[in-house]
Amino acid sequence: MTYCVGMKLDRGLVFMSDTRTNAGVDNVSKFRKLFTWTTPGERSLVLMTAGNLATTQAVVSILEERTKAPSERRPSILELPTMFQIARLVGDTLRDVIQSNAATGQKADSSFNSTMILGGQIKGIEPRLFLIYPEGNFIEASSDTPFFQIGETKYGRPILVRAYHPSMSVEEAVKLLMVSFDSTVKANLSVGLPLDLQFIEKDALCLGASKRIEADDPYFGQISSGWGDALKKAFDSLPPFKF
Amino acid sequence: MTYCVGMKLDRGLVFMSDTRTNAGVDNVSKFRKLFTWTTPGERSLVLMTAGNLATTQAVVSILEERTKAPSERRPSILELPTMFQIARLVGDTLRDVIQSNAATGQKADSSFNSTMILGGQIKGIEPRLFLIYPEGNFIEASSDTPFFQIGETKYGRPILVRAYHPSMSVEEAVKLLMVSFDSTVKANLSVGLPLDLQFIEKDALCLGASKRIEADDPYFGQISSGWGDALKKAFDSLPPFKF
Repeated sequence: MTYCVGMKLDRGLVFMSDTRTNAGVDNVSKFRKLFTWTTPGERSLVLMTAGNLATTQAVVSILEERTKAPSERRPSILELPTMFQIARLVGDTLRDVIQSNAATGQKADSSFNSTMILGGQIKGIEPRLFLIYPEGNFIEASSDTPFFQIGETKYGRPILVRAYHPSMSVEEAVKLLMVSFDSTVKANLSVGLPLDLQFIEKDALCLGASKRIEADDPYFGQISSGWGDALKKAFDSLPPFKF
Repeated sequence: MTYCVGMKLDRGLVFMSDTRTNAGVDNVSKFRKLFTWTTPGERSLVLMTAGNLATTQAVVSILEERTKAPSERRPSILELPTMFQIARLVGDTLRDVIQSNAATGQKADSSFNSTMILGGQIKGIEPRLFLIYPEGNFIEASSDTPFFQIGETKYGRPILVRAYHPSMSVEEAVKLLMVSFDSTVKANLSVGLPLDLQFIEKDALCLGASKRIEADDPYFGQISSGWGDALKKAFDSLPPFKF
C-alpha cells in the first residue's frame, strides 16, 4: 500500500508521500514515490505514485527518458505548453505501461494498476492538481475538492476534511498532513516512514521547500504522541451521553 | 455497506450498528442489523451483521426458527451451554447459507458473503465477544483487541483506538461510538442513521439499555457538530511546523 496526499492551497501546492512498498508483509522495501521536474523560472512539476511498483517505475522512467534524450524529446513533460497536456501524457503513458503488461496475458497476485497525483505550475497559468487513474483519464482539483489522496486513503481522511482550509499557510498544511499520515501509519503496516514533503509556491516557478521526514524526526514524534492526547481532550470536551 | 462495532468493557458489552442497506447508490433501504435474544436470568445475546442482506436475513431466520419451533429445538442458541458453542452454531449456519447460494452456481455482483459480531453472557460465565467470518470460523475479543468492527471500519477506527478504555462507563462508550459512527457516516454514503444501540450489563443476564438513534436525534447532532470544532481545537493545540 501507499499513502500520498496532494493539496491545493491559495499559496501553492503541497505534496506528501510515504515510502513503503511491500509485496506481502514479509517483503517490505523503501522506495521514493514523489518525483519532481523543473525548468526554473518556467515550470515545476510533482508526480506521486501509488500501486504496482514496476508500473510506476516504468512510467517515471519513460517520462524522465523523454526529458533527457535530446533526439527523442518530442512529448516531453518539460516542453508541453499546459498542465492539461502533461496530465494527458502521464495518463497515456500509465495506461500504455499497464496494457503492455496485461496484454502478454501475465497476471500478478495484485493487479498491474497504479494511480497518480500530478501537480505543478507553468508560467502564466494557475497551479493545477490532477488525479490520474489507471485507465489514463483524470480529474482536476477544484474549490469543492481541493485535495486528492491515493493509496490507503480512509484512516487519514476525517481530519483532512475537518481541518483543511485553502487559506492555510504551508506550515499549517504540513502539520495537518503529518496528523493525517500519523493516523494512517498507526493503522496500516503497509504505510510507513520516512515521508517525502514537497511544496510548490504559487508563481515561484521553481521547486519550493522540501524535506524527507525520517522515522526519528522529532517534530513528527511530537505530533504523533501529542495527537493522541489532543484527541482524548477533544473527546472529553464533548457533552456526556445519558440514556 | 454497513458499520457495526461490538465493544467489551469491564461493565459489560456495548453494541452499535447502522441500518442502511444498499444495492447501488440508487437502491437504498433501511434494515435492522442488530438482533437480540434473551432468557432473563440465564443468558442474553446480541448478533450484528454486515454483508449480503439475503444471507444475513437467512441466518437470523434460521437461528430464530430454531429457537421458536419446539419440535426442532435441538441446536438452539437459547439452549447451548456456552458462548463458544453458540459462536460455532452461528458460524456453521452462516457458512451453510453462503455455500447453499454459491453451490447453485449463482453469482451476484457482490458476493454472498457476510461477517458477524456475536456477544453475550450465559449465567456463570464471563461475557464474551466474537467476530465470525463468512467461512464460519471466528475469533474472540481479548484485552489486546477488546472491540470488533465490521463493514466500513476504517474512518471510525482512529478515534476508537485512541480513546477506548476498558474501564469506561457505558455512557462514555456510547459517546465514543457516536463519534466513530459520525466520522463514518460523513465519509461513506452507504452507512447511515438511524443507529441501533444495545448494552448488555455484566452479570445482569438480561438485555440492558437500548436505543434507536434517529437521524434527528439531538444528542447525535451535538456530537456531530461539536466534534468538528473539537478536532479543530485539538489540531490547533499541536505545536507548529517549521521548515
